[in-house]
Amino acid sequence: MSLGFVSLVGAGPGDPELLTVRATRRLADAELVLNDALVPSELLALAPRAQRFFVGKRAGRHSIDQAGIHQLMIAAARRGKRVVRLKCGDPFVLGRGGEEALALEEAHIPYEVIPGVSSAIAAPALAGIPVTHRGLASGFVVVSGHSDDACAVLDGIAPNSLTVVVLMGIRTRAALATRLLARGWPAATPAAVVYGASYPDHVTWRGELAALATAPAHGDPLPGVIVVGDVVALADRIAYARPDAATAASR
Amino acid sequence: MSLGFVSLVGAGPGDPELLTVRATRRLADAELVLNDALVPSELLALAPRAQRFFVGKRAGRHSIDQAGIHQLMIAAARRGKRVVRLKCGDPFVLGRGGEEALALEEAHIPYEVIPGVSSAIAAPALAGIPVTHRGLASGFVVVSGHSDDACAVLDGIAPNSLTVVVLMGIRTRAALATRLLARGWPAATPAAVVYGASYPDHVTWRGELAALATAPAHGDPLPGVIVVGDVVALADRIAYARPDAATAASR
Repeated sequence: MSLGFVSLVGAGPGDPELLTVRATRRLADAELVLNDALVPSELLALAPRAQRFFVGKRAGRHSIDQAGIHQLMIAAARRGKRVVRLKCGDPFVLGRGGEEALALEEAHIPYEVIPGVSSAIAAPALAGIPVTHRGLASGFVVVSGHSDDACAVLDGIAPNSLTVVVLMGIRTRAALATRLLARGWPAATPAAVVYGASYPDHVTWRGELAALATAPAHGDPLPGVIVVGDVVALADRIAYARPDAATAASR
Repeated sequence: MSLGFVSLVGAGPGDPELLTVRATRRLADAELVLNDALVPSELLALAPRAQRFFVGKRAGRHSIDQAGIHQLMIAAARRGKRVVRLKCGDPFVLGRGGEEALALEEAHIPYEVIPGVSSAIAAPALAGIPVTHRGLASGFVVVSGHSDDACAVLDGIAPNSLTVVVLMGIRTRAALATRLLARGWPAATPAAVVYGASYPDHVTWRGELAALATAPAHGDPLPGVIVVGDVVALADRIAYARPDAATAASR
C-alpha cells in the first residue's frame, strides 16, 4: 500500500473565508481530520468525506496527549490516508506544529505545512488594531501567556517600543500587567483583549494597561488575544467593522 | 451614485494558493486593483475584470506617494468602484495599511481589512523554521530593517529568548548582526535569510549570526526575510519541502 500524506494546516482565526485556498482544497480531499478545540464546525464541514477526530482540550484536559496525536497521524498515513491536521491560526505559532513536523519526518511520512492567518495579527486587525503603525510601533512581539512566568521574555523590551501580543494569556492577564508596569510601561498604555475574532459573537475589551486585570474573561469557549501598546488607541479611528461597511461588502 | 467599497487585502507571501478565500472573492469582483511591487502576476490574474494600477516601488523609487495611493482609492470609491488594495503579506504588518484605513475612514468610504498570511511567519515556515518551538523559543519578535537603527528596539531582548524576524532588512543585515552580537547573542546563533518564500525560485541561506553580513543579497526582485534564533537549526530536520513530499501532495 502506498503511503498517505499529512498536511499540517493553519485554520486561521475561525472564519471559513479566512482559510487559505490550499487549506480548503486539502480539507475537501481529506480522509481524516484531526482538529483542535476552537476549530468551528463550519470549517469541519469543508471536509465532507473525512472521518473527524477531536484532539484538543475539553474542560481544560487534553483528550489525547501530543504523542498520541503523532501516533494517529502516522498510523493513518501508513494506511494510505490523506490526513489534515487542522490547527488554529498558523501551525508554527505556539501550536506545537514543529513537534508534529519532526514526528512525521522521523517516521518518514510525506507531509507539508500550510501556513495560516495567525490570530496574533488577525485578531487585533479585526478589532481595528494594526500591530504596526508608523510613529507608534515599528514592530511587535508575540508570546504565550500559558503561565505567569511565560511573559518574562518581555522584561528587556523598552516600554512602548514594540506592540505586545499575548496568546493563551487570559488566565494570566493580571501577571502580565503587573510585569509590564514593573518594567516601566505607563499605566495608561492602551490595552485590549479581543475575544472570538472573526466569529459572529466576537467582543473586544479596551482599556488601560493598569485595568487589564479587570478585563472580563470570556475566554471559555471564545479564544482571547491580548494586545498592549499605543496602536490599540487606533481602534477608536479604525472602525470598519461597523454595520454599513459589512453591508456594503456583501452587496 | 452610490459609494463603492475598498478592501485592504493581504496577498500572503506570493503563492496564489496562500491567498484567503475572501481575498480571492474580492479579487474576482474587483473593478480596480492597486498593487504593490512583489505581488506576482498570478495573483493579479485572479482579478480579470479589474483595471490594475501599480503603486509600488520601481528601481527603488515609489511610483506614487502614500497620499497619492489614498487619493486613488478614495476617488475610485466615490465613482462607485469596488477597489482592492492588494498588499504583500498581511496589510497591518509593516505595510502602512493602518494609514490607508485611517484615510478611508476620514473620507467616509466604506472599507474592510482582510488579514493575510504574513511573510514574517510563513517565510520561515516554508523554509522548515517554526518561529516558536517548545524548549527553543516561546515567542518571536517582528521588526522592520529599513534602516540601520530600525532594529534598536531589539536591544533589550535577552539573547536567544525570542526568535527575531526582520522584514525589509536585507540591505541592513550587517548592522543587525553587529547589534545582536554586541548585545551578547552568541556568534554561533543559527540565522537564515529566506528569499522568495512560496515562489518557485525560492532560496534560503543558512549560517551563523556572525556570518549574516556575508549572506548573498538576492533581494531584488525576490523579497527576503531574516530569521535569527535557535529555531533556525530545526530546518535541518524539517525538510518537508523535499521533492517527494511535493509529489505526494499533488497526486
